[in-house]
Amino acid sequence: MTTTPEGHPVTPLPRTGIGVDVHAWAPEGDDRPLWLGCLRWPGERGIEGHSDGDVAAHAACNALLSAAGLGDLGSVFGTDRPEMAGASGAQMLAHVADLLARGGFQIGNVAVQVVARRPRVGARRAEMEAAMSSALGGAPVSVSAATTDGLGFVGRVEGLAGIATALVAPR
Amino acid sequence: MTTTPEGHPVTPLPRTGIGVDVHAWAPEGDDRPLWLGCLRWPGERGIEGHSDGDVAAHAACNALLSAAGLGDLGSVFGTDRPEMAGASGAQMLAHVADLLARGGFQIGNVAVQVVARRPRVGARRAEMEAAMSSALGGAPVSVSAATTDGLGFVGRVEGLAGIATALVAPR
Amino acid sequence: MTTTPEGHPVTPLPRTGIGVDVHAWAPEGDDRPLWLGCLRWPGERGIEGHSDGDVAAHAACNALLSAAGLGDLGSVFGTDRPEMAGASGAQMLAHVADLLARGGFQIGNVAVQVVARRPRVGARRAEMEAAMSSALGGAPVSVSAATTDGLGFVGRVEGLAGIATALVAPR
Ligand SMILES: [Zn+2]
Ligand SMILES: [Zn+2]
Ligand SMILES: [Zn+2]
Repeated sequence: MTTTPEGHPVTPLPRTGIGVDVHAWAPEGDDRPLWLGCLRWPGERGIEGHSDGDVAAHAACNALLSAAGLGDLGSVFGTDRPEMAGASGAQMLAHVADLLARGGFQIGNVAVQVVARRPRVGARRAEMEAAMSSALGGAPVSVSAATTDGLGFVGRVEGLAGIATALVAPR
Repeated sequence: MTTTPEGHPVTPLPRTGIGVDVHAWAPEGDDRPLWLGCLRWPGERGIEGHSDGDVAAHAACNALLSAAGLGDLGSVFGTDRPEMAGASGAQMLAHVADLLARGGFQIGNVAVQVVARRPRVGARRAEMEAAMSSALGGAPVSVSAATTDGLGFVGRVEGLAGIATALVAPR
Repeated sequence: MTTTPEGHPVTPLPRTGIGVDVHAWAPEGDDRPLWLGCLRWPGERGIEGHSDGDVAAHAACNALLSAAGLGDLGSVFGTDRPEMAGASGAQMLAHVADLLARGGFQIGNVAVQVVARRPRVGARRAEMEAAMSSALGGAPVSVSAATTDGLGFVGRVEGLAGIATALVAPR
């Protein structure tokens, strides 16, 4: 622990990070499930592509890696990592938490906002926060939601986005 | 206060949060006023919808609630809260500050960026910062502005956005 | 230094800030160079306009100014500052770092995410981080990247964006 000349501990500054993640909705009528905030949302339209498309989990991973200076989803779970292909949002969060711990960082908190017309995040907010926090080994996670007043790709129901910030501190 | 074994105080980590807010411009020629950063902007085009559409105040509220893990504008000022219908940005900020205080948080600072073609934020920056800070009981607020080089819904003058981050700390 | 009644130092809360920056791609076939993260990217399509269009450097400047409450790129490098016309991203970062130091702030860290289809940030991440950090006098800078699954102005290859957060502390 760093100390002042008088022996008082000096807290090193924490670090902040930012991360966004965007996915396109699957075609209407497609039967793939929606995953968001490490939860399955029965009856909701799913996401295009080969990942589970969990924008809340992915944005949170990006924010944590950004705060710690450890790269991003692309570099950590890139196409040259076949063993991570098809990893769930929860598995990704757990892996990122492990990378941060091994890098000497503790997670202060992660805050994610889902920018989407659907689903209704408020109905399952506590459940999402608990699931994401659990994947991170207990770090505080907050989840909120916003829409875009019908504007942009979110308003046109082409896709949804997650935007996150995180605070981490050297141990 | 938490202390080390030697009796030195340990500062708990602060928490960071993020919030966005988007509103569509009212139709050209509509006479409703523009509210932004808790200020009225005479002569500027107003915002569609039934709130005052203050993207700076709303994004700041979202960021503060996000940092404290207390939900979002939708959950705090939802449609089932008729007494908050038509609340101004300043009233919303004051209510959010009260929720944080009762939740045991002090506000470190709030930083908002307005992403819009109009109005010219720089001309009234200090006034916006003072009005928002006052609504929050004196917490530091910074306001900045950006455009999007003509791109997206902001560039097409369909709407404007606020994006904010906040830092709060357990008392 | 602020102290408790027992003489222990009290660390003032750090401050967080946020900044975005967006630029349009130059027309296909135009020969202007791409600057991103204070690096020149040979063979990559350049940016429209009269600045070097470095969205990573500009977003980082905005986030730092936002955290310190010192305005934004427009107010600091506005059109009434002919001596800054054509300033590079590195020159802007150095000027912002100087403003913060003179304002009594130390930079904790800056985290930037580039939201773009091109270039491949991962290939030169460490180089970008080193160049931006050097421009800031050694402050930690992290660079990450995201795409938008083909959506919005980034997906339509109309432009690219940078989004950044920064943590600063009163000295
Ligand atoms: Zn994703
Ligand atoms: Zn709003
Ligand atoms: Zn720029």
